[in-house]
Amino acid sequence: MAEEIENIGFELTDELLIKVEQLIALKKDKELQKLLRDFHHADIAEILDELDLEEAIYVIKLLDSETTADILMELDEDNREKVLRNLSSKEIADEIGELDTDDAADIISELPEDRQHEVISHIEDEEHKAEIKELLTYHEDTAGGLMAKELVKVYDTWTVAGCLRRIRGQAKEVTRVHSIYVVDKQNRLIGRLSLKDLIVAKSDQKIEDIYISSVDSVNVHDDAEDVARVMQKYDLEAIPVVDNNQKLLGRITIDDIVDVMKEEAEKDYQLAAGITSDVEADDSIWELTKARLPWLLIGMFGGIGAASIINGFSDAMLKFPALLMFIPLIQATAGNVGVQSSAIVVQGLANDTIDGSLFKRLLKEFALGLVNGLAIALIVLLISHFAFHTTYLESLTICIALISVIIMAAIIGTFIPIFLDKRGIDAAVATGPFITTSNDIFGILLYFLIAKAILGF
Amino acid sequence: MAEEIENIGFELTDELLIKVEQLIALKKDKELQKLLRDFHHADIAEILDELDLEEAIYVIKLLDSETTADILMELDEDNREKVLRNLSSKEIADEIGELDTDDAADIISELPEDRQHEVISHIEDEEHKAEIKELLTYHEDTAGGLMAKELVKVYDTWTVAGCLRRIRGQAKEVTRVHSIYVVDKQNRLIGRLSLKDLIVAKSDQKIEDIYISSVDSVNVHDDAEDVARVMQKYDLEAIPVVDNNQKLLGRITIDDIVDVMKEEAEKDYQLAAGITSDVEADDSIWELTKARLPWLLIGMFGGIGAASIINGFSDAMLKFPALLMFIPLIQATAGNVGVQSSAIVVQGLANDTIDGSLFKRLLKEFALGLVNGLAIALIVLLISHFAFHTTYLESLTICIALISVIIMAAIIGTFIPIFLDKRGIDAAVATGPFITTSNDIFGILLYFLIAKAILGF
Repeated sequence: MAEEIENIGFELTDELLIKVEQLIALKKDKELQKLLRDFHHADIAEILDELDLEEAIYVIKLLDSETTADILMELDEDNREKVLRNLSSKEIADEIGELDTDDAADIISELPEDRQHEVISHIEDEEHKAEIKELLTYHEDTAGGLMAKELVKVYDTWTVAGCLRRIRGQAKEVTRVHSIYVVDKQNRLIGRLSLKDLIVAKSDQKIEDIYISSVDSVNVHDDAEDVARVMQKYDLEAIPVVDNNQKLLGRITIDDIVDVMKEEAEKDYQLAAGITSDVEADDSIWELTKARLPWLLIGMFGGIGAASIINGFSDAMLKFPALLMFIPLIQATAGNVGVQSSAIVVQGLANDTIDGSLFKRLLKEFALGLVNGLAIALIVLLISHFAFHTTYLESLTICIALISVIIMAAIIGTFIPIFLDKRGIDAAVATGPFITTSNDIFGILLYFLIAKAILGF
Repeated sequence: MAEEIENIGFELTDELLIKVEQLIALKKDKELQKLLRDFHHADIAEILDELDLEEAIYVIKLLDSETTADILMELDEDNREKVLRNLSSKEIADEIGELDTDDAADIISELPEDRQHEVISHIEDEEHKAEIKELLTYHEDTAGGLMAKELVKVYDTWTVAGCLRRIRGQAKEVTRVHSIYVVDKQNRLIGRLSLKDLIVAKSDQKIEDIYISSVDSVNVHDDAEDVARVMQKYDLEAIPVVDNNQKLLGRITIDDIVDVMKEEAEKDYQLAAGITSDVEADDSIWELTKARLPWLLIGMFGGIGAASIINGFSDAMLKFPALLMFIPLIQATAGNVGVQSSAIVVQGLANDTIDGSLFKRLLKEFALGLVNGLAIALIVLLISHFAFHTTYLESLTICIALISVIIMAAIIGTFIPIFLDKRGIDAAVATGPFITTSNDIFGILLYFLIAKAILGF
């Protein structure tokens, strides 16, 4: 590899970590600065995430605020909170002065309210301060909460040459120029241009003659997830944000959307696994317990419910003990089918591919349950007959119960997410333990009812 | 909303669908073209996905190939396959002529092998043809499989003015100019420039004096998921792809990475839900059965295993029937804890945050299981004693079993994904039904062993 090609192979080794720790311990500031200078800020953040808090703060105070501002953004959220608690409001304001408005607003919004005002009052650049204050007024899950104020805009009356001159000024503040937005005198978004278009155009042409009038935009109050869906669908790398009067307020870039998508996917995955808040493997036992115990308790009440049902049929149990052996099978099958059905529906809802008649969909799940149920029941029939020597009526009971429970679980797993979605509730909560627990109870109840009908106890 | 602001509010209504279908039925080509002209190609794809195959093909043959090529890329994969089967090799080649090389190669790779050669032979532009052929040689899950050949490159010896002149030529083929790549005479990547840098520079400056020599790149054989991770970590919108000699081969843009991330998240979610292949709610019952039955069968064998265990302890069951009632509780709790633990580990592995000693991690799960187990056992103790009138020894059995099973499930759920990951197997397969099934069996076995030790049957 040529020396210029960097970063891509970065791996945080124990040697590197020990070296950094030693340099901190020995207060070899110059050597430390020299060592870290060649790393990308995201890599330095990875190193700091592994250090003790005092060591991390030592490094942050050592490096210049342009670098540390970017590092702060990349730190693990818990660590960032701790670091910020150990910096003065003035120090935080200096970091924030180096950040784009969207990142600056994100960091400030993580601070306790009284510190927010203090930090903002220390920001020196008045324009930057006003823009950050504006961004803080939007909800974090909306387009306003995602957007940055930094953008390049031109008026339709300018010439190409004039534009290029002014863009040279504006572009210095903007990390990446995706599109140049064209506005009218009232600052209303009327079109866009790419830098490429400007370069290809003749220098005396007017913007109004060359701009592209079809431009996608989102409203500042649009939901962040909807913005993500739109940018993904239309392969956009940036989208302008406007208010109700079409006035240009800011722009959202794809890197923020990538983060939204990732958080969304992680949240859904955790919900499906019965974890109620965003936790990581390295969180404290207390935080992990808070995230995990709620679903375990609900599962526990499900198990108690199942115990009551079995208790209610205790006479039958003594007469047909073979039935009891198959309770775990019935329960596991109901759980697995339910999770499969609900996962497919939840994913379909997220991708907007669930439409058409609910009745048809349930009918399809019925057919699907019947096919799967018949296949499994046939195998169980053979095993129960030859390995467990159940009577014909007992075998029949188990098979009919399996088929019924599979169909029931498939229908419940399909219906509940769609039902929740129609009521405006996030369907992802209806996966995993929720479906498993309800199917456990209904499955065992159905099993005993079918046994009662066939065996007649 | 001003008229220029388009698309963002697109919603596929029944009225629109009916109108399109009517225009097709009446063969009102001009009206149909006029209607569809104002829609984004992604929206037209959404309409076509809802039409019958003949109707969709009618629309595709009606519109010009520049538009339909983009529409093809946005169609649902199953529908695209059907549409392609109904187009001649020449027609497909014309569509492909309009696409960027990466999209073109993706479409061709979906065709049966004999058609691939036919289609390629019909591509008229020899350079485009050669580039597509090159891309087809890379595996789809590598950087080479993701990259496009379209990029803007300049030699370090050029001047800014010369660059701008040549970029005007190159840029016409490139939809979006992210970075301008700087290469030496051997076509080796040595740096990058942004269009902004070029515009800001003086026209007689040499590229070698202004280019940025630190440039991230990936190797053509790097794993697609690694590329996604890198681009996300460093907030990149495009990354150049090089071969082992650092020669510039292509570039990958963030929109392709967004798709990789999304597929990855969906795959993990489906694996966690026990679905073995990528299916959608609208797939056929046969396809859905193929994706769902394997895990149901494994769950079934787990259930049969549980039945054998219960059968093996059938004498004890008759002596202590109260124990049986709590089998579903033990099983459900083991399943829930296992899924929670494994989900956290799988997510940690995906985010590269799982490091450090395995022993420490298992010890933490032990402590966590103990805390959760004590909380749940206490509640169950009260309920079993007062509601089910279990004896003291029976209650003790249930509580100790619950705590043990929770600890066991937490440790298994943590250990297995880490173990698989170390063996190079995708840890995501170890979530959902896999963990649930193994915990079902071990949980029930542990329950009876503890009962035997305490109650002494």
